[in-house]
Amino acid sequence: MSDYNPPVENMLCLLYDVLGFEHPDIDRDTARSVLEEAAKLASAVLAPLNHTGDKAGSKLENGAVTTAPGFKEAYRQYCEGGWNAVPFDPEYGGQGLPWALAFCIQEMWQGANMSFGLCPLLNQGAVEAISLHGSDEQKQKYLPKLVAGEWTGTMNLTEPQAGSDLGLIRSKAEKQADGTYMISGQKIFITYGEHDMADNIVHLVLARTPDAPEDVKGISLFIVPKFMDDGTRNAVTCIGLEHKLGIHASPTCTMEFDGAKGFLIGQENMGLKYMFTMMNNARLSVGLQGVAIAERAYQKAQAYAQERVQGKSFRTGERIVIAEHADVKRMLGTMKTKIEAGRALTLEAAVTLDQAVSGDEAAQKKVELLTPIVKSSCTDMACEVTSIALQVFGGMGFIEETGIAQLYRDARILPIYEGTNGIQAADLAFRKIVHDEGKTALAYIESLSDTIPKEDCARLAVATKTLLLWASEKQMDRIAAVSANYLRAFALIAGGALLARLRGFQENKPPFDPVSGALLPHAAACLVPIIGR
Amino acid sequence: MSDYNPPVENMLCLLYDVLGFEHPDIDRDTARSVLEEAAKLASAVLAPLNHTGDKAGSKLENGAVTTAPGFKEAYRQYCEGGWNAVPFDPEYGGQGLPWALAFCIQEMWQGANMSFGLCPLLNQGAVEAISLHGSDEQKQKYLPKLVAGEWTGTMNLTEPQAGSDLGLIRSKAEKQADGTYMISGQKIFITYGEHDMADNIVHLVLARTPDAPEDVKGISLFIVPKFMDDGTRNAVTCIGLEHKLGIHASPTCTMEFDGAKGFLIGQENMGLKYMFTMMNNARLSVGLQGVAIAERAYQKAQAYAQERVQGKSFRTGERIVIAEHADVKRMLGTMKTKIEAGRALTLEAAVTLDQAVSGDEAAQKKVELLTPIVKSSCTDMACEVTSIALQVFGGMGFIEETGIAQLYRDARILPIYEGTNGIQAADLAFRKIVHDEGKTALAYIESLSDTIPKEDCARLAVATKTLLLWASEKQMDRIAAVSANYLRAFALIAGGALLARLRGFQENKPPFDPVSGALLPHAAACLVPIIGR
Repeated sequence: MSDYNPPVENMLCLLYDVLGFEHPDIDRDTARSVLEEAAKLASAVLAPLNHTGDKAGSKLENGAVTTAPGFKEAYRQYCEGGWNAVPFDPEYGGQGLPWALAFCIQEMWQGANMSFGLCPLLNQGAVEAISLHGSDEQKQKYLPKLVAGEWTGTMNLTEPQAGSDLGLIRSKAEKQADGTYMISGQKIFITYGEHDMADNIVHLVLARTPDAPEDVKGISLFIVPKFMDDGTRNAVTCIGLEHKLGIHASPTCTMEFDGAKGFLIGQENMGLKYMFTMMNNARLSVGLQGVAIAERAYQKAQAYAQERVQGKSFRTGERIVIAEHADVKRMLGTMKTKIEAGRALTLEAAVTLDQAVSGDEAAQKKVELLTPIVKSSCTDMACEVTSIALQVFGGMGFIEETGIAQLYRDARILPIYEGTNGIQAADLAFRKIVHDEGKTALAYIESLSDTIPKEDCARLAVATKTLLLWASEKQMDRIAAVSANYLRAFALIAGGALLARLRGFQENKPPFDPVSGALLPHAAACLVPIIGR
Repeated sequence: MSDYNPPVENMLCLLYDVLGFEHPDIDRDTARSVLEEAAKLASAVLAPLNHTGDKAGSKLENGAVTTAPGFKEAYRQYCEGGWNAVPFDPEYGGQGLPWALAFCIQEMWQGANMSFGLCPLLNQGAVEAISLHGSDEQKQKYLPKLVAGEWTGTMNLTEPQAGSDLGLIRSKAEKQADGTYMISGQKIFITYGEHDMADNIVHLVLARTPDAPEDVKGISLFIVPKFMDDGTRNAVTCIGLEHKLGIHASPTCTMEFDGAKGFLIGQENMGLKYMFTMMNNARLSVGLQGVAIAERAYQKAQAYAQERVQGKSFRTGERIVIAEHADVKRMLGTMKTKIEAGRALTLEAAVTLDQAVSGDEAAQKKVELLTPIVKSSCTDMACEVTSIALQVFGGMGFIEETGIAQLYRDARILPIYEGTNGIQAADLAFRKIVHDEGKTALAYIESLSDTIPKEDCARLAVATKTLLLWASEKQMDRIAAVSANYLRAFALIAGGALLARLRGFQENKPPFDPVSGALLPHAAACLVPIIGR
């Protein structure tokens, strides 16, 4: 019996009932069979490796990283089932499933085992970068292997002095006579930068050519494979693994590029732009990780609460399981509310992404608006929900053997990587609101007033216009100071609206309405520093 | 250079300016010298052992626990300085300092090294239990040693099936011909149940005599020393150490009592009542731990933010340290606000405790009201603030070597032990509000309206009366369901009122008022499920 059961029916209800997902080849029953198949692998194979992976971690010896016991075999099973190919272009061996379905499937990998799930997540970024910006030759060479999962991809961005600020990157790329580049420098925090699960690793690396313009305008993107075509090893080595708070089974590598052979993607000095097209979808995926790990924690807490007998019923005076205590019900209900609002928002982004991919420009704008909101709010939510779950376990929650503490530790990376949540808030306020003159946001907010009180939508609209006003007065620091509050309020209201719609389709309703009782009042509170009380 | 500088001036300002603390022998300068002396030991001796202690942990071998390197020597220094005796009765070697000052001093031990600070914290509980309920002989025998710190005390409550619900305790105590008791059973989660820092350990143990009434009415409290007077070892052994999320250097022991000799405290079957008198002050101390570890995390984040260069100024376009970015300022300001509100509330409880100890009954009621609020709100705050501090570190925060992740892990125990925060909320709603007919609470809320808007106080008063109404209608589950929300709102409003007073004495005010801009609106949001919008 696995302790993880992916919430297939909730996903289907969100997609088909709440979000109006439609697809010529995929009706609800077809989607259900696909999701149930994925759920089997997630719960039977990946979930049991989560806690053992945490304890074993991954090991570095002589530049080679050995992943935790069982990971290699599970990865093979995952690839053989065709799961790695789910959202990709059939031209390169992909299954071409819509993002809406791919997100549901990916939630399962992340919920079952986030350390494992990071490998395909990064790989997906590499596939997108090469698909969008690579040459035909590069596509033919790398995509089939990456799509099948025989090779995996990485993102090499961060350097010790360049985290959120990629303009400070110092890694060098010197052009050679044969048109290739010689890459030198050190990269840190490289997820699955080295491991033993795939035959080759395709590093996407940001570096600077000798005559490049300064700062962000002089960064280029390169493909640096671990093994060359002739099987020789390229000059890129893992020289260290980080000792981290969580995701112990995911190797976080320090990578040394010592004159490694690299292949330019697209044009020189366009690297940051390319990297961002790939990072945007990764940001949605990280939000999805938040939903996933929160769901896992919720399921564990619920199971524990239903078996732990402690304290008495007010009504009967008999001892009861703690799930029957009103305060524990509140905790379980709070978790469920936050998770479902987060999942709804993430799947709304996924459904919209499918529309955007098929050329709908308004949809593209909407995905861009939702991306920082999903990333930031769902990852903060993951920290909060895993903490509540741990609390349900009481003293046992603080003991590592119950496994809930691991989820609490693992979740804490989510507000940090793929752009910290502070960066997301700035992205929302400046790029997605101010730069867009509030158009996409105001239209979106307007659309919410069908399901939630007009006053809440009005508050958010006023706050949006206030940001635009401040921008016109060049009060940029003032916008930055409230950007996190604005994002949080946006997420609470948008999530609340979706949740209100979802509730219409659910039979068991909570004792008090979480939308008007919890989400919206806190959203109003978040907006006070912007628009007053 | 230590990375921990106890906030002596903030403590003095709170005590003497905000809370009107007065003492015939201790003026502000005297208090300052005492606090500065304590601060030296905290920052120079205890703080450097915090991270090394986390890495080394404590070790169990053949029933003996060895604490982390340096702990034993630091404990000797701490006792030799007379610090263990600070709040205790001079009749038994105590220094007789008021709780107001003792709390400030104790914040420093906990901020410097929470794993270390737990040993004196538990010892203090034992001193109080024996002082209040022990026989004269027991007082003469144990108190001088416990007050000096030569011996340490423990609290043995929890059993695998009896956590929050102590009525389920099964440990047995059989009376012997000589008037002593033979104690048998297993206790879990016993902090410093075994260690090498003191000559003897005095266990206070809850157990049940053979003919005792069922449930909570049949529990008695016993003294079970590790070593008997003649130096022989008593039959109590540490048989396991827990592998925990945090506080690694604090040994959390499973204790086996195998016919150990025990001495009854007070009368049979009164054990739970005795234990609660001692646990109440321990609850305030746990709240204080929350303030302490949050302060430590804040200082670390602030120092990092002032040296980490990343991103550019909107104004100059130059690269700046992250402390100058508006969103990081928001994070630092949020931390400071929450910590100072928490410290103010905790010290208000301490000042009131001094009045209560000298016989003021209204003060006693007020301390009882404030205890669950302080415990719960300051410990939730600690989790939140250590998380924000970690976020300020970005990717480096997730790496264990920076030490901030340790504070995040350590803090997570605080909402759990000494009564989970759910138990605190129930204690507030039922024992402190309903049972008191709201008198103490409503008078206290009324007193807040000098400093914060009357409408906020009015909301809290209406919520209080709503709880009383529901109680009169026997809607106990309904009260329990909102008790955590009620507690949180109470803490935000009471903390906000104290903070508003504190701000009057501070020169550097934050850009927007945190009380009206953040604390009060969220308090209003918390009250919505009780009183509507």
